[in-house]
Amino acid sequence: MFLVIIFTSSFLFSSYNALDFCVGDLSAPQGPAGYSCKKTEEVTVKDFVFSGLRVAGNTSNLSKVTITPAFSTQFPGLNGLGISVARVDFSVDGRGLMHTHPEATEVLIVIQGTLCAGFISSTNKVYLTSLHEGDVMVFPQGLMHFLINVGNSSALAFTSYTSASPSIYFMDYAWFANDMSTYILQKTTFFDHDQIKRLKRVLGGTN
Amino acid sequence: MFLVIIFTSSFLFSSYNALDFCVGDLSAPQGPAGYSCKKTEEVTVKDFVFSGLRVAGNTSNLSKVTITPAFSTQFPGLNGLGISVARVDFSVDGRGLMHTHPEATEVLIVIQGTLCAGFISSTNKVYLTSLHEGDVMVFPQGLMHFLINVGNSSALAFTSYTSASPSIYFMDYAWFANDMSTYILQKTTFFDHDQIKRLKRVLGGTN
Amino acid sequence: MFLVIIFTSSFLFSSYNALDFCVGDLSAPQGPAGYSCKKTEEVTVKDFVFSGLRVAGNTSNLSKVTITPAFSTQFPGLNGLGISVARVDFSVDGRGLMHTHPEATEVLIVIQGTLCAGFISSTNKVYLTSLHEGDVMVFPQGLMHFLINVGNSSALAFTSYTSASPSIYFMDYAWFANDMSTYILQKTTFFDHDQIKRLKRVLGGTN
Amino acid sequence: MFLVIIFTSSFLFSSYNALDFCVGDLSAPQGPAGYSCKKTEEVTVKDFVFSGLRVAGNTSNLSKVTITPAFSTQFPGLNGLGISVARVDFSVDGRGLMHTHPEATEVLIVIQGTLCAGFISSTNKVYLTSLHEGDVMVFPQGLMHFLINVGNSSALAFTSYTSASPSIYFMDYAWFANDMSTYILQKTTFFDHDQIKRLKRVLGGTN
Amino acid sequence: MFLVIIFTSSFLFSSYNALDFCVGDLSAPQGPAGYSCKKTEEVTVKDFVFSGLRVAGNTSNLSKVTITPAFSTQFPGLNGLGISVARVDFSVDGRGLMHTHPEATEVLIVIQGTLCAGFISSTNKVYLTSLHEGDVMVFPQGLMHFLINVGNSSALAFTSYTSASPSIYFMDYAWFANDMSTYILQKTTFFDHDQIKRLKRVLGGTN
Amino acid sequence: MFLVIIFTSSFLFSSYNALDFCVGDLSAPQGPAGYSCKKTEEVTVKDFVFSGLRVAGNTSNLSKVTITPAFSTQFPGLNGLGISVARVDFSVDGRGLMHTHPEATEVLIVIQGTLCAGFISSTNKVYLTSLHEGDVMVFPQGLMHFLINVGNSSALAFTSYTSASPSIYFMDYAWFANDMSTYILQKTTFFDHDQIKRLKRVLGGTN
Repeated sequence: MFLVIIFTSSFLFSSYNALDFCVGDLSAPQGPAGYSCKKTEEVTVKDFVFSGLRVAGNTSNLSKVTITPAFSTQFPGLNGLGISVARVDFSVDGRGLMHTHPEATEVLIVIQGTLCAGFISSTNKVYLTSLHEGDVMVFPQGLMHFLINVGNSSALAFTSYTSASPSIYFMDYAWFANDMSTYILQKTTFFDHDQIKRLKRVLGGTN
Repeated sequence: MFLVIIFTSSFLFSSYNALDFCVGDLSAPQGPAGYSCKKTEEVTVKDFVFSGLRVAGNTSNLSKVTITPAFSTQFPGLNGLGISVARVDFSVDGRGLMHTHPEATEVLIVIQGTLCAGFISSTNKVYLTSLHEGDVMVFPQGLMHFLINVGNSSALAFTSYTSASPSIYFMDYAWFANDMSTYILQKTTFFDHDQIKRLKRVLGGTN
Repeated sequence: MFLVIIFTSSFLFSSYNALDFCVGDLSAPQGPAGYSCKKTEEVTVKDFVFSGLRVAGNTSNLSKVTITPAFSTQFPGLNGLGISVARVDFSVDGRGLMHTHPEATEVLIVIQGTLCAGFISSTNKVYLTSLHEGDVMVFPQGLMHFLINVGNSSALAFTSYTSASPSIYFMDYAWFANDMSTYILQKTTFFDHDQIKRLKRVLGGTN
Repeated sequence: MFLVIIFTSSFLFSSYNALDFCVGDLSAPQGPAGYSCKKTEEVTVKDFVFSGLRVAGNTSNLSKVTITPAFSTQFPGLNGLGISVARVDFSVDGRGLMHTHPEATEVLIVIQGTLCAGFISSTNKVYLTSLHEGDVMVFPQGLMHFLINVGNSSALAFTSYTSASPSIYFMDYAWFANDMSTYILQKTTFFDHDQIKRLKRVLGGTN
Repeated sequence: MFLVIIFTSSFLFSSYNALDFCVGDLSAPQGPAGYSCKKTEEVTVKDFVFSGLRVAGNTSNLSKVTITPAFSTQFPGLNGLGISVARVDFSVDGRGLMHTHPEATEVLIVIQGTLCAGFISSTNKVYLTSLHEGDVMVFPQGLMHFLINVGNSSALAFTSYTSASPSIYFMDYAWFANDMSTYILQKTTFFDHDQIKRLKRVLGGTN
Repeated sequence: MFLVIIFTSSFLFSSYNALDFCVGDLSAPQGPAGYSCKKTEEVTVKDFVFSGLRVAGNTSNLSKVTITPAFSTQFPGLNGLGISVARVDFSVDGRGLMHTHPEATEVLIVIQGTLCAGFISSTNKVYLTSLHEGDVMVFPQGLMHFLINVGNSSALAFTSYTSASPSIYFMDYAWFANDMSTYILQKTTFFDHDQIKRLKRVLGGTN
């Protein structure tokens, strides 16, 4: 006869506090390593699932591309885990403008459509290619990259990052969509005065 | 009149050796941080693109699921960058068996189909959910997780990992698909002798 | 004649706030990198010493093994330092059941007794050995390992981990000591229905 | 009488191989973590000293600024230590053009002169200031920054980086000093065709 | 006619919370990774600039050297960025006493004067050299090093560290400028009783 | 009837190269992250076990203490895993002299005997205690610490380190057991000439 012994693993060792994960508590202090952890007893499976990427983002904008992030702010289960993802929607002729991720490498997977993609190294070499459905491309940390929907219909890609909270850093917006002085831009780039003024008008900058 | 001055950035600073990336040289020594770097002058855009995920993997196997990796061995551009991706194909009734990634967190994006997904924490709590197209789920590092295609057709997901070379570690195979002695398995798990012997037969184990 | 000059190092540099250590304040916010730091002026030598491993743990349990942790929760001086230790006591026939540490490598030192020890790699290879007093074994991060007291008396080992707060993750308990559904276990492992039900009874699981 | 006992620390412990440093062997394999280590017996103090920053760099170039690096390629003692420095010389009206360090934070110390300095965050905010002799400024990792000599004489600064081999990445050169197609630049930036063509002429680009 | 479209990058993607930097909030909890972050909207350029190194430190002390730190406590913009700097002033005959940085590598740049500098490895090898204006030297993490002003006038150096909050750890002060018992010092060093007592008098120690 | 299906996990996914561990190949290039990896097919369980700590080290030396290391050079299975251990034997009156580990935190477990132990922080505070069998103490990275056998018989401790190859760095030997000039020692410490000369004689130093 088999004797049933009710038993749980807590019998195996003195109580301790494992840290399998650190779901972000968005209202508590944030440090260099991320948000403070939500109490384990308040964590549910919902913290580890994000449905905000189900639908295409609105691409009614100048570049006809939208990035929808699933970063630790939207998806607190990623906090402290050093990874995040995003959805990128391209309308016809959509262009992912020149940008970097200052603290993260990106890997992109094409789900639908055909993209022209590339990045530029710090030795000024251009790495340029065409990407088709199922293709994967890596954009090493901090390097400028871009994507162009060169197909006849909308395109879709998913991206992953080596940070739970990567920055998305568009050069044109950083230069022309704020109060950066035209004088300084002329001094620190090779753009001429009229070009700078024109882009400030396009992108909403002043000065 | 505008004077054209031909000029490159190499004029701006003495020559130096930037390391924007370290594409893996699969034939050179490998260390704890990854493969040795291919010489920069031999690197091309092909090193940063991988097309091996275009087509569905063959799911004619016991679990009706196949993982097709784009890790640094297949995709050397990832070397040293701490990230990789994979494609996971599920036939009808396909099951991603209980497994861990010993050194990596995984983020999964459902591209097609409906999955039942879950993971188990070290306090033995089950985090279980249903995932639909576009849903994202995170499986924190080292925790057992599983996926079941609960829809009526095949399913597809892409996964990302916080390692350029993550291990995929199936508990059942680790236990029953090798020469691990039945005696030791009986001693170190609660499975009974007959169950162990049966699974060794199913999975090709001996002893 | 020798002129005595009273002098302290604070004269050598403007005041600053060194961070030699960050003793955990268990009542303050916890983040991905660990607990908040106790104020330096409240730290005493007691924070850096732990006496809870002096006595053997109670091995009156199913596996006849107890792990007594000295992790950052018990021993706050370890907070932020990336290391911890534990004491493992084995009664005669004690078995350290199959488990992993999802975020840590373990090094074990045998203090007393003879153990059969092993781990299994993600290529399903078994690394199996006997350990005697003074022997050291390493269990790489995230890999399943086990220990069996194969001597005629109780055994003792000390273990170290590459984390101040490692998880201890028993496969059997994770599967069978909770409300994980039998249906899902059947789908995602090769165990049969009766085996699963039996182990749930043994380990206190439901569903 | 005092008994002289000749004794060295090697008596205190069995021989082992400490790794206080890993001076780069520039001719051996390089991996993601840096160069292979030179044999310890071949290391001399010269490996830890660099005199290449004694003299001002030649500022006879378009921007009237030169960066002279002391990175691991020039100064192999830095290999594996995660830090490097450089000297930056500014002629009158010298401008440190918009650039980033894709993998490093920079700290700059003004030794001589007055600089206008700034960086732009990924939320497009400009952080702008004047720097005088002895002032220190930090440029967080991957963010575009610039420096202008606004004084009446030459200026000098030293910079430190959180990498032994940081990249120096000028946006203008990355865009216009290579074979990047004008078509793609038009698509992925807001610059107009004539501006792109003009900058390609100035900086030596084609296509 | 050109149509002006006012547009900012916030149109390109859903709102998210980038973490380009984490300026330290000195009044909030501190963890192993540094201070909590100041709210981004309260951050100004002043957080990224430090003027406390403009003037020479007071060298009226026993060693005629003063280190003026620009660490995260003085310069909160460095928080979480893993780097800091300091100014070191030497009077004639000033000596940077034997010390280590327990958690940081240091790189030193000589701005003025001639220094004798050296460090000692854990194999007890001395790396000794002379440093002149513009010379750079690296002191690998945790190794004892020293600097002597061997010129005829005051000297100045700037130093960088691989930590935002490095400790400065003088052996003599650690041993003799506190209540460490003479008995223990005799037991754990080779110094004789009288020497210990004398140094305690000089440096203000007791016991 | 049960149909036996021979099956291995290699059917589940395309071939890839997992890196569960990186056993050190002591004859191949070494980099900042450790030794190159031995080929996986040549790795055996012996690489993960070390028996060199079974017997007590020879304590017939000046301090009557011996440290026997199990670091990656002796125990290549530790390579890349960031942890190592050692055995420390104390004769009666044995003293673990003042030392640091420049790149590692240490945790010590007393197996036998009674020790007086302590460390000194960079604010010159002494943390002093008595340790008995089973007690654990942590010595934070880079801080000077010491141990004295204050019992009536020999003592034994095991230590763990947060590095696979920690340095052991004795202050007295670093200063007096080499060719470091007496003049420099006088300038950079507070020791007097006669003391320095005496310790050089005791420890085998010159100059």
